[in-house]
Amino acid sequence: MPFEPRPATDNEETMAKTIQLDQGSGGRAMHELVAGLFVRAFANEHLLELNDSALLEMEGCRLAMTTDSYVVDPVIFPGGDIGSLAVHGTVNDLAMRGARPLYLTAGFILEEGLSLDLLERVVVSMGEAARTAGVLIVAGDTKVVPRGKADQLFINTAGVGVVPRGLRIGGQYACPGDAVLVSGTIGDHGMAVLCKREGLSFENEILSDSAPLNGIIGLMLDHTPHIHVLRDPTRGGVATTLNEIALQSGVGIQLREEAIPVADDVAGACEMLGLDPLYIANEGKVLVILPESSVEGVLSVMRDHPLGRKACRIGSVVAEEPGRVFLRTRIGGHRLIDMLRGEPLPRIC
Amino acid sequence: MPFEPRPATDNEETMAKTIQLDQGSGGRAMHELVAGLFVRAFANEHLLELNDSALLEMEGCRLAMTTDSYVVDPVIFPGGDIGSLAVHGTVNDLAMRGARPLYLTAGFILEEGLSLDLLERVVVSMGEAARTAGVLIVAGDTKVVPRGKADQLFINTAGVGVVPRGLRIGGQYACPGDAVLVSGTIGDHGMAVLCKREGLSFENEILSDSAPLNGIIGLMLDHTPHIHVLRDPTRGGVATTLNEIALQSGVGIQLREEAIPVADDVAGACEMLGLDPLYIANEGKVLVILPESSVEGVLSVMRDHPLGRKACRIGSVVAEEPGRVFLRTRIGGHRLIDMLRGEPLPRIC
Repeated sequence: MPFEPRPATDNEETMAKTIQLDQGSGGRAMHELVAGLFVRAFANEHLLELNDSALLEMEGCRLAMTTDSYVVDPVIFPGGDIGSLAVHGTVNDLAMRGARPLYLTAGFILEEGLSLDLLERVVVSMGEAARTAGVLIVAGDTKVVPRGKADQLFINTAGVGVVPRGLRIGGQYACPGDAVLVSGTIGDHGMAVLCKREGLSFENEILSDSAPLNGIIGLMLDHTPHIHVLRDPTRGGVATTLNEIALQSGVGIQLREEAIPVADDVAGACEMLGLDPLYIANEGKVLVILPESSVEGVLSVMRDHPLGRKACRIGSVVAEEPGRVFLRTRIGGHRLIDMLRGEPLPRIC
Repeated sequence: MPFEPRPATDNEETMAKTIQLDQGSGGRAMHELVAGLFVRAFANEHLLELNDSALLEMEGCRLAMTTDSYVVDPVIFPGGDIGSLAVHGTVNDLAMRGARPLYLTAGFILEEGLSLDLLERVVVSMGEAARTAGVLIVAGDTKVVPRGKADQLFINTAGVGVVPRGLRIGGQYACPGDAVLVSGTIGDHGMAVLCKREGLSFENEILSDSAPLNGIIGLMLDHTPHIHVLRDPTRGGVATTLNEIALQSGVGIQLREEAIPVADDVAGACEMLGLDPLYIANEGKVLVILPESSVEGVLSVMRDHPLGRKACRIGSVVAEEPGRVFLRTRIGGHRLIDMLRGEPLPRIC
């Protein structure tokens, strides 16, 4: 099956000294690479935080800044394309710090021979996504590499936004007693890309959930500033993202399996392919961790927004088992949910 | 010869509809692509300016923002590597608006199988370059693509800096009567990369000039705020950069051939290979356009700095022939210097 881990072609020693696909997966191997190399070499407090974007002070202005590169294959998939994805991903990383995203940059690496029609379609889609999200793409760069030295096109976006005073939102602020919410069904983006890439078809086409979350998050923060964590569960899915938060905050997280929303088609495809939706990437969903007292109000705001219709509570933050995530299964079991290991779905974003 | 334009392999019609190598060269083909597609799709005043970085207002804070992707081949070259280059390039683009560079992001696209030793060397070099330039790398991203889908590693950096009030620096502000200065010898970076890639050796190894220019530019601006244009002549070289400025400002630019500093080894290599140093990339040089009255003072400040020892005046801005650049040759001729056409040196940065 195409999504199974590829057989080892090198011996163990060589593999340990070269980059492996799963070091880009968002899972445990990537965390080790990032912590072991990048954070050490670039040593500064902002990177050490390991949040979706850095929070910076600049001449009295409170700024969030972030970057992501996009290498998704195929570049056009049901519900989106690499261009709109590159806008949504960076807008969302800014919104996850409570920032109002304002300005984006766009860096293109193009393979010689790339169809200009395809490039135009992607660039136009990117422009539309930026207008919808209310951000400006203010600077750009284009490099072309010879045929065979890249795969069609890669896009990097970086972004900055303004963070209102009084917010204190980050993966390190989850507290025992908090509730864990999700804004809708999980796994849609990853399964949409996978099905397109592998030519799998189901009764209904699975659409990516790729969308800008700054609108819905702005409304939630208008309702209450008392939100502890916002995080979009992209690579590595809900399971990996919650593991990161559990580690950052030094808390345990307990999920209830029957509460986790999964669309029927996504659930069916996952079951058929032996994948767990908890590990599948989302590009238009947000995990919210907040005090019990704000749950009902925030859920009601979320459900009033088109991107939060199926928002619900999926679990709780606890003091026990710090750094770990557990799932209470439908049949009453208690299962440890680890970070993603290996790379079931390369090039999902 | 490896640096000659490759023979056409497709018919004209196909070529017109696909991306060609010279659309990443920084020359005319890239300008047409950028103006025809990106600027139209992302329509906003900042992109229309076509400067090295965008000047933004944000909560009363005056910000410069820019991005560049780096695909240089080979990734390690005499005088630098893709990591330090990725820091210098973005720091310099910010400095070219008079900004004090503060924060960078770094996005890595890694090819499966990349040597971890090589990656570590590049990342450590990047960290050192950032410390030397006085900037922090505050956010990052890593993607891994399967073997053969990228070429070792590509790096994107984006950056922000603060622009002091009272500065008005940009490619659109050159005035007839202004002088044109350069901070040192030209063509070093491009020739260093080319010689390494093609295995050419000369008596002395040609070293890249890759360096952060924010220090020297800060001193120049402390001396006088009356600088009209700062621009680092990277891809496309001095010739293409001055053409851009001539177009942006609607002025003519006249250069004196004998005034243009070229290191002997670079001049020799260029002559042997049939290349013109005016079109070769620099990564640690700045072109300065400023009123006649400030020339001597600024030159003296530049020459006191290690990166400006060979600073000199190479020409003048004139009202005649707006949008064009001319060279008065050693033998008294008058030659039109166009933008770079074609791509003599792919993947130079």
